[in-house]
Amino acid sequence: MVNKLLFKQMDVFTSKPFKGNPVAVVNCMDISEDEISSETMLSIANWTNLSETTFLFKPTDPTKSNYKLRIFTPANELPFAGHPTIGSCKAYLQFTDQIQTLKYIRQECEVGIIDLVSDVDTGIISLKAEKTDLDKLEADVVKLYQESLTNNGKPIKPIDSPYVLHVGPEWVVFLVEDSETCYNANPDFGKMAEISLKYGHSGIILAGKKSKFDENSSVLEMEMRAFVPAYNVNEDPVCGSGSIALIRYLQQKYNFSKTTRINISQGGRMTREGHIYAEIKVTSDGISYHCGGDALCVVDGVINV
Amino acid sequence: MVNKLLFKQMDVFTSKPFKGNPVAVVNCMDISEDEISSETMLSIANWTNLSETTFLFKPTDPTKSNYKLRIFTPANELPFAGHPTIGSCKAYLQFTDQIQTLKYIRQECEVGIIDLVSDVDTGIISLKAEKTDLDKLEADVVKLYQESLTNNGKPIKPIDSPYVLHVGPEWVVFLVEDSETCYNANPDFGKMAEISLKYGHSGIILAGKKSKFDENSSVLEMEMRAFVPAYNVNEDPVCGSGSIALIRYLQQKYNFSKTTRINISQGGRMTREGHIYAEIKVTSDGISYHCGGDALCVVDGVINV
Repeated sequence: MVNKLLFKQMDVFTSKPFKGNPVAVVNCMDISEDEISSETMLSIANWTNLSETTFLFKPTDPTKSNYKLRIFTPANELPFAGHPTIGSCKAYLQFTDQIQTLKYIRQECEVGIIDLVSDVDTGIISLKAEKTDLDKLEADVVKLYQESLTNNGKPIKPIDSPYVLHVGPEWVVFLVEDSETCYNANPDFGKMAEISLKYGHSGIILAGKKSKFDENSSVLEMEMRAFVPAYNVNEDPVCGSGSIALIRYLQQKYNFSKTTRINISQGGRMTREGHIYAEIKVTSDGISYHCGGDALCVVDGVINV
Repeated sequence: MVNKLLFKQMDVFTSKPFKGNPVAVVNCMDISEDEISSETMLSIANWTNLSETTFLFKPTDPTKSNYKLRIFTPANELPFAGHPTIGSCKAYLQFTDQIQTLKYIRQECEVGIIDLVSDVDTGIISLKAEKTDLDKLEADVVKLYQESLTNNGKPIKPIDSPYVLHVGPEWVVFLVEDSETCYNANPDFGKMAEISLKYGHSGIILAGKKSKFDENSSVLEMEMRAFVPAYNVNEDPVCGSGSIALIRYLQQKYNFSKTTRINISQGGRMTREGHIYAEIKVTSDGISYHCGGDALCVVDGVINV
């Protein structure tokens, strides 16, 4: 068994340290996967106390992907997750000294191969979403959630029907009037957790536009928040899969006929300043959903396993 | 302003990695305190997501202490804390290469000077508690807490009057019949948080003896748990100040006339295996309270500030 591995704690969806969403990345590319047990990985992820800790391995087939990623929360292993993928991809490029040279990266993980693009000039890494199905939320469940989503005791109304987005996590997307309504919400987390657990949802994505939507613009500015009280995280600082859920929902609502950029701010209520650069790509091949952001290495060293 | 500092994430009250209570330690001994702002320290502590992150500085007066420690939670600065002191002292000895040579260490922090002893042979570091006053808890408040401390819906009864211990944090100590009663408790954290906030308590220390108390023995084996839901930590894995509260309470109850060792196990319900070696020292100078444990460096590197 190993006892010393390279380690980075990355900050994701930010260019300023301590303003994004952290992920711990353990470099296992010089060992084989059977040299570190799932139990050990889970106990590391439980101990870092971060929403996710990831483990980079050699790819199963080097002709098909650059690396294999395993993703753990403090409680279990995940098939995929957004900000841990962006942060781990950046860490991979740093560990392997390819930050200036490798533009297209393929990540092997439990859901399959994730396509990533690294912009050498801006440092931004983007991923293409795999799964973006959605279902309308029943009116009685909407009503329950509304009672948990309050601002100074007043329930917050969605401006259109909320949907459940199946993007890996099961996000309920609530679009509200404007960014202030989103920013000022003070949810009843106990109530929200009960509803989420009852209906099998991961949590709520609350979002509002920063300015009036202009049909002719190909850029939309949004404020977003992600609540996951059913899984002991009242609020996630900056959320990749949440941004995918949001833009898929916006495509359902607006049916954009050209490629549209959605710039998302998140984390202000948690002293963070996250920026997600999401995109709905409309091409002759169809529509695809992308989310991207910067990531930087904050803690750099070794972990004694 | 600085941009790169030495960093260690220590595991405290354990000899096995990932089985204790983590604390992040930033080495600021090569800079002056005005080179890093309180805001930056707080934002680092908010980002690590650990219960505490500490910052080691040069001592104000090198003839009076070895180092100065500032301690931050994700929300605020603390005047003192137990496991962060043990972990930071061990990190100090490692950073300064004195682990084999320095036995008596004096830590400057907001509450004053803390005396620490490092056992070169066992690696165990012990601290002497500063503040150990206590007050009996009112019967109606005991009743309220009992309703929040349940096992399968049945309230858990204390075997003696609970007290509020003023050891820095304001711990309510609840002594129960045996270690199993302690281990199996499933508190209602929402209810407990409300009571703690209403009466100004930090949280609850629940403890039970592992074996029948033998008047002639100078060693007592205990199981302990620490609940802090009022401050968003349902359960703390292994708690130094809680152990001080517990042994002060036991001295009140048993009035030990000779030095007594209290070996405390904690963290089992959270997949940890913490060990605190606490001691009530009875000498001609009076009675003093000590807690100690091993600590090891798990993550070792730099932090980019």
